[in-house]
Amino acid sequence: MGRSGDTRERIVRTSARLLLSRSYGSVSVDDVCAAADVRKGSFYHFFPAKADLAKAVVDLHTDALLERLAAASGDTAAQRLHGVADAVGGIQAGFESTFGRVVGCPFGNLAAELSTVDDTLRDHLASAFARWERGFAVTCHQAADEGVLREGVDPDRLAHSLLAHTQGRILLAKVGGHSATDVAATLHDLIDVHLREGAV
Amino acid sequence: MGRSGDTRERIVRTSARLLLSRSYGSVSVDDVCAAADVRKGSFYHFFPAKADLAKAVVDLHTDALLERLAAASGDTAAQRLHGVADAVGGIQAGFESTFGRVVGCPFGNLAAELSTVDDTLRDHLASAFARWERGFAVTCHQAADEGVLREGVDPDRLAHSLLAHTQGRILLAKVGGHSATDVAATLHDLIDVHLREGAV
Repeated sequence: MGRSGDTRERIVRTSARLLLSRSYGSVSVDDVCAAADVRKGSFYHFFPAKADLAKAVVDLHTDALLERLAAASGDTAAQRLHGVADAVGGIQAGFESTFGRVVGCPFGNLAAELSTVDDTLRDHLASAFARWERGFAVTCHQAADEGVLREGVDPDRLAHSLLAHTQGRILLAKVGGHSATDVAATLHDLIDVHLREGAV
Repeated sequence: MGRSGDTRERIVRTSARLLLSRSYGSVSVDDVCAAADVRKGSFYHFFPAKADLAKAVVDLHTDALLERLAAASGDTAAQRLHGVADAVGGIQAGFESTFGRVVGCPFGNLAAELSTVDDTLRDHLASAFARWERGFAVTCHQAADEGVLREGVDPDRLAHSLLAHTQGRILLAKVGGHSATDVAATLHDLIDVHLREGAV
């Protein structure tokens, strides 16, 4: 990667850290430039507007998330569903270790703060959530095909439910000062209640 | 209520609307004063800092929420659990009708944006969430006492799960442009999967 790519990546990674530890509104372009040690002209060369930076941060997290979900392994779909919960817990544990607390989901934080403020950013976040949900849905459909879901449980609705639960549980951990381990635990509970008795 | 109380209440109600339709960071004290038609000196008389206003807005929503939850009726605990989902859906439908779209949960929005930025506000929001969760837990314990929860379902964990789900589902509706009706529907699904077969 050339020097220009290095600079862009440094801006994105620095911003990802700043946004997670604070909020979009409380991080200025000046803050980013100071923390990433780049000039403002250079920043605006890569990101004409602050919202363009937010989109790049969303893309960075999306790639990391999808990689993590794809790595969720297990011999059965039920095990892989629990692997998905572990993947989410693992990502949160990583943030917790970096920041000393649960700081929320990078997508959820931006979605809550900006969905009513910036429509193109909202669309970008909606696409990221949709990719995430499709990742969950693959495993939920495998569970349906293996016959381990409870009677009446629709795999697509379960995928949506898992995503909603993930978002809400991370938010409650952030505001309540709970640990990343707690987040994974309640996701495991949610998965278990949707599986037939004895499914592993 | 005297004129002073009127002014304070007008500031709080106006701010509640502005915060829901935008974000904390994008609404300035100037915006609030202009929309509520009060002078800045008057604003700071009631709210020494913008965070004090946010707390008052949280209190306004907490009172409305608890009143709504208390009104959730039904002959059986299962019916009252579904009534809780309807109460949440009803509040969201009210916001949807006011703003023309799902704008998020007033608690969740502030919690996502400010939990890492302002610790006293985070504590205030954590207390509001705890009161909400206790409201859910009362009905979940009644369901446990009536024997309608599935084997192994703990009523306190179910209350927490319902709150997490509510938060996440509202957020997904906000970012995905879904309706308040969709929010209530997935809460009903979540309740059903925790009830024994045939429980009504």
